[in-house]
Amino acid sequence: MTVSPEASYRLRYGSEPTLDPPAEWTDILAQQLDHRSVRSYRPEPVSDATLSALIAAAQSAPTSGNLQLWSVVAVRDDERRARLAHLAGDQQFIVEAPLFLVWLADLARARQVTTGVDSATAEGADFVEAAVLSFVDVALAAQNASLAAESLGLGTVFVGAIRNRPLDVAAELDLPPNVFPVFGLTIGHPDRVAESAVKPRLPQQAVLHHERYALEPQTAHVETYEELLNTFYAAAGLPDSWAKRVARRFGTVAGLNGREHLRDALHTQGFQLR
Amino acid sequence: MTVSPEASYRLRYGSEPTLDPPAEWTDILAQQLDHRSVRSYRPEPVSDATLSALIAAAQSAPTSGNLQLWSVVAVRDDERRARLAHLAGDQQFIVEAPLFLVWLADLARARQVTTGVDSATAEGADFVEAAVLSFVDVALAAQNASLAAESLGLGTVFVGAIRNRPLDVAAELDLPPNVFPVFGLTIGHPDRVAESAVKPRLPQQAVLHHERYALEPQTAHVETYEELLNTFYAAAGLPDSWAKRVARRFGTVAGLNGREHLRDALHTQGFQLR
Repeated sequence: MTVSPEASYRLRYGSEPTLDPPAEWTDILAQQLDHRSVRSYRPEPVSDATLSALIAAAQSAPTSGNLQLWSVVAVRDDERRARLAHLAGDQQFIVEAPLFLVWLADLARARQVTTGVDSATAEGADFVEAAVLSFVDVALAAQNASLAAESLGLGTVFVGAIRNRPLDVAAELDLPPNVFPVFGLTIGHPDRVAESAVKPRLPQQAVLHHERYALEPQTAHVETYEELLNTFYAAAGLPDSWAKRVARRFGTVAGLNGREHLRDALHTQGFQLR
Repeated sequence: MTVSPEASYRLRYGSEPTLDPPAEWTDILAQQLDHRSVRSYRPEPVSDATLSALIAAAQSAPTSGNLQLWSVVAVRDDERRARLAHLAGDQQFIVEAPLFLVWLADLARARQVTTGVDSATAEGADFVEAAVLSFVDVALAAQNASLAAESLGLGTVFVGAIRNRPLDVAAELDLPPNVFPVFGLTIGHPDRVAESAVKPRLPQQAVLHHERYALEPQTAHVETYEELLNTFYAAAGLPDSWAKRVARRFGTVAGLNGREHLRDALHTQGFQLR
């Protein structure tokens, strides 16, 4: 990576960032700031050796108390990918990408290990806390895998839409009780013809607080961002605004696309959320 | 980083890994595999410029639908760090580290943006799905920040124990409704005198599944790991086994250290988990 910090900040925060880029800069920062979602792939496969490297990166992420409350299913079979693409909102790039990783919150292994110790029960795993532990663990792991893939020249995109119909996904992957599909991740060689852009984020001042949280000062930063992102969307031929996109997701129950049943689905899979 | 893939795999999976390291290797994979928790820090501060770079890395992580459902509070004040250390199980390294980042699931900003659009409500934010979106978003972001810090020669460790008393943490940081402290992250210059080791993880075969999930074959891999980790713990002068550690966390409600009240705390902060 030879991108300068100035250029990276400009892409990430828009044309006139109000931040000074840091004096110190690393290849890792450059790779992270260059992240973009890739939704168009060439057909070349991802090898087992590469997959192993990505999972080693994932397992090297921090995990609360070394509990390692996650697993992942690597799906390469064309027909299974097609079925999962259908369950996840008919998103074509899941069919196109040669590798689809389904990341799982996994309390089954911990329950088995716990109940094998002095005939203990695993009552602690019934609580919301266990779900939080496993969802955070799997996200930390997957982010490492995604960045590792990018460092190898591959493209990725996270797929939250597997939560639209999580029990159907669970059936497709033979998930036992206490294992839940949290998100997918497509991985493959990016089709450079349809290269995607770095998407600008909220001004850093909107998300970074010092000593105490403050909501009120965010309003101005959000307005700045709304203008910035409207310009970005317009250049991409999209009519939307950021506020409208947020509102479409949270304004009505229908915007959840089936995920309003997530609590019931978690219960069904054994996550009791006490 | 000049560590070989063979050496990295050996540290991460124990003395005789059954995996062939990948043909392709990057500095990012090397940095990821070299991750270790740092709980001993020198007093030198972390500069504002470095903090800005870490947050830029965090904001560059994927975020579902570009919703950006997180914020972070940077705590440097000695007395506030001491109070937070007390709330998080009296862990001394939180006092020692010059910078403590408290990562927040943030639905407040999205609710504000949503309700400003055509006088909409934000009913979608009442569901478990909204909590999952924000908890996953903040974890992806924080993992980028942690790896970026490591690439700059800093050390980090995640602190889940702020969930022992999340409402006290919320009060300390002036968190409004719909903002919840998910975990902390200490950052500072590692005290090399007390350098920590890379911790071996479960055999990759226990967490990586192909096409379908399988629980039964994991038993043998977990047994292998139990032996491996007992050796690791014994070398560190710790009497424990992995199974006992897992069982201590999940075997009883008392093992949750207060986190059995997490659902109530989320409700109090406005996360309705419908």
